[in-house]
Amino acid sequence: MTKFGFEIIHKDSKTLARCGKLTTPHGDVMTPAFMPVGTQATVKGVLPTTLKEIGTQILLSNTYHLYLRPGSDIVEQTGGLHDFMQWNGPILTDSGGFQVFSLSNTRKITEEGVLFASILDGSRHLFTPEKVMHIENQLGADIIMAFDECTPYGMDRNGAEQAMYRTLRWLDRCYKTHNDDRQMLFPIIQGNMYEDLRTESVKRTVEYAKCGIAIGGLSVGEPADVMYRILDVLAPYYPDNMPRYLMGVGTPDYIIEGVRRGVDMFDCVLPTRIARNGTAMTSAGRINVRNAQYKTDLLPLDEQCDCYCCRNFTKAYLRHLVNCNEILAGMLLSIHNISFLLKLTENIRKAINENNFDQFTQSFYAKYYKNRHIE
Amino acid sequence: MTKFGFEIIHKDSKTLARCGKLTTPHGDVMTPAFMPVGTQATVKGVLPTTLKEIGTQILLSNTYHLYLRPGSDIVEQTGGLHDFMQWNGPILTDSGGFQVFSLSNTRKITEEGVLFASILDGSRHLFTPEKVMHIENQLGADIIMAFDECTPYGMDRNGAEQAMYRTLRWLDRCYKTHNDDRQMLFPIIQGNMYEDLRTESVKRTVEYAKCGIAIGGLSVGEPADVMYRILDVLAPYYPDNMPRYLMGVGTPDYIIEGVRRGVDMFDCVLPTRIARNGTAMTSAGRINVRNAQYKTDLLPLDEQCDCYCCRNFTKAYLRHLVNCNEILAGMLLSIHNISFLLKLTENIRKAINENNFDQFTQSFYAKYYKNRHIE
Repeated sequence: MTKFGFEIIHKDSKTLARCGKLTTPHGDVMTPAFMPVGTQATVKGVLPTTLKEIGTQILLSNTYHLYLRPGSDIVEQTGGLHDFMQWNGPILTDSGGFQVFSLSNTRKITEEGVLFASILDGSRHLFTPEKVMHIENQLGADIIMAFDECTPYGMDRNGAEQAMYRTLRWLDRCYKTHNDDRQMLFPIIQGNMYEDLRTESVKRTVEYAKCGIAIGGLSVGEPADVMYRILDVLAPYYPDNMPRYLMGVGTPDYIIEGVRRGVDMFDCVLPTRIARNGTAMTSAGRINVRNAQYKTDLLPLDEQCDCYCCRNFTKAYLRHLVNCNEILAGMLLSIHNISFLLKLTENIRKAINENNFDQFTQSFYAKYYKNRHIE
Repeated sequence: MTKFGFEIIHKDSKTLARCGKLTTPHGDVMTPAFMPVGTQATVKGVLPTTLKEIGTQILLSNTYHLYLRPGSDIVEQTGGLHDFMQWNGPILTDSGGFQVFSLSNTRKITEEGVLFASILDGSRHLFTPEKVMHIENQLGADIIMAFDECTPYGMDRNGAEQAMYRTLRWLDRCYKTHNDDRQMLFPIIQGNMYEDLRTESVKRTVEYAKCGIAIGGLSVGEPADVMYRILDVLAPYYPDNMPRYLMGVGTPDYIIEGVRRGVDMFDCVLPTRIARNGTAMTSAGRINVRNAQYKTDLLPLDEQCDCYCCRNFTKAYLRHLVNCNEILAGMLLSIHNISFLLKLTENIRKAINENNFDQFTQSFYAKYYKNRHIE
């Protein structure tokens, strides 16, 4: 009845990069894909209609935040997340696992689940695999994530191992609970930066992967080469016929290096967060629009870009808006930065399809990182 | 060469209300008209393209703010206000007179002009009629306002009289300075709440009015009936063949009562300011979207409204956004509130043209103010 599927369109000959098409009940997603983040059922400062116009294929929203406010009961009563936020394309919800560990000061982990204090009012809540499946079911996203224990960078091997095995046991409970065939459940690989734990995790996790698989616990503060090494370790074990999703990753180099290592999906708050600080990603690297050198600059943020912001506004005007703390500054820079990453993944897909991915990568890096090696 | 003009389309038979068409180099404005305010060259939280879509005919921008930041030199160097902010419709700039008196704690008024301290950094600046004409010329709006002395509500008769006569002398200097036929200069009537001073001011001011005339110093804290009395006093003296602009006025009742007394143009920050506090103007009166009663309310803000916000979003979602302090809350409520006032003036025009203004007014008041007499 419900349409899910993943079709590989083209594989790169030199790397593990591939182009694919993910089918969901709310539409198709061409991969590699970047997913803008709408934490509280809104991509900060961007109208849903604008997201559509700039080519957003799929949004991510956060279970932790929506559970606390307005409450998943209310989202369910108002028709589910798609209706609630008026986004009729595909949506993915995370499981709250990352937030429970990164946002809550007070928390207690047991085999049953995690007891944590709300960031809003300190009230105490228990997330269990069963509870999270229920919440994500109420939210009604097309893709839902299993409840996992995400360990911080620097965690000792023993702690990382315990968390990895607990994540596997929780995964089993998630699958036993999940029974809505309108939602794809993605399991999450953990294991911190320990290669053997990652290998064990991926081997055990693929057994649960029916429609897609996620890599969690990376981009949590580790050096880039550590992340790339872990991705190299994992690569041989992914099932071929489903998308691989690298959670929380969104700098251009991480996306490109992820794709090179066989990853298909990415998400990050980066484009909107730096936009609100007056920073733009351009084909010539990041620029801080506040800079006095743009005072009378009549050029757009990025001459290569055809987004609404770049088609219409000068750096002189954007600098003025940023300096005045005008809401429109964050709005326009968010439109541009999201467009930039969507365009990047579009160009990546094109390059892969034309057997040109390696050359595209080199040419992109030469311009974007001309002043430094890594972001 | 430059197209300016004002054509009266229809006069109401029972009141002084009239419909007209104001022609400017950047397009026509059907009157009565409401002008959204873009203080710092942006209507807070609304994309220019959205302003167009919801039927904005003309924008107001503030000379005081743009002179201080980014500086009128920079606006001029970047092509003038229309290019700078990418609004290709008509623009009106005020003269900074009101801001110099309302925003600056430190100021010294002499015959020459006003010495004031910047709200941004305390730096000292002198506004004279000649200087303000130069600044407004650099900004390049279609309609520019003469530099006036705006007195606060409660000012004694002597102070109000001095300011009124000084405004007339400054007006003379403005006209002697202004020499750009691409810009219409509107003189401003002052005189505080003193009927004889207002009469003297309007009689002397109309001598300078070539394309339009403005009523300043109202809606500064006085009771509504005082404002209406002053408008009644002024009404017999306006020239017929040009628009009358009541500065800073934007509540529905003030607009309606202004139109009834022969006013054609209005501006106010109200719709965007209250939007950012979670308040919406609806055909059933103002509502605070934060209210718990909207928790699962699936209706739009206003069922009578066809704006982007009302076509797409429920009160339940808007309440969630407001409670989360999400930028999108202010964006969507601003779209709605501006639409509401644009629609109000559109309905007023329709009612006047159909000789139905009195009935429209009564029916509007009955719904909008059902719970109280005045806003």
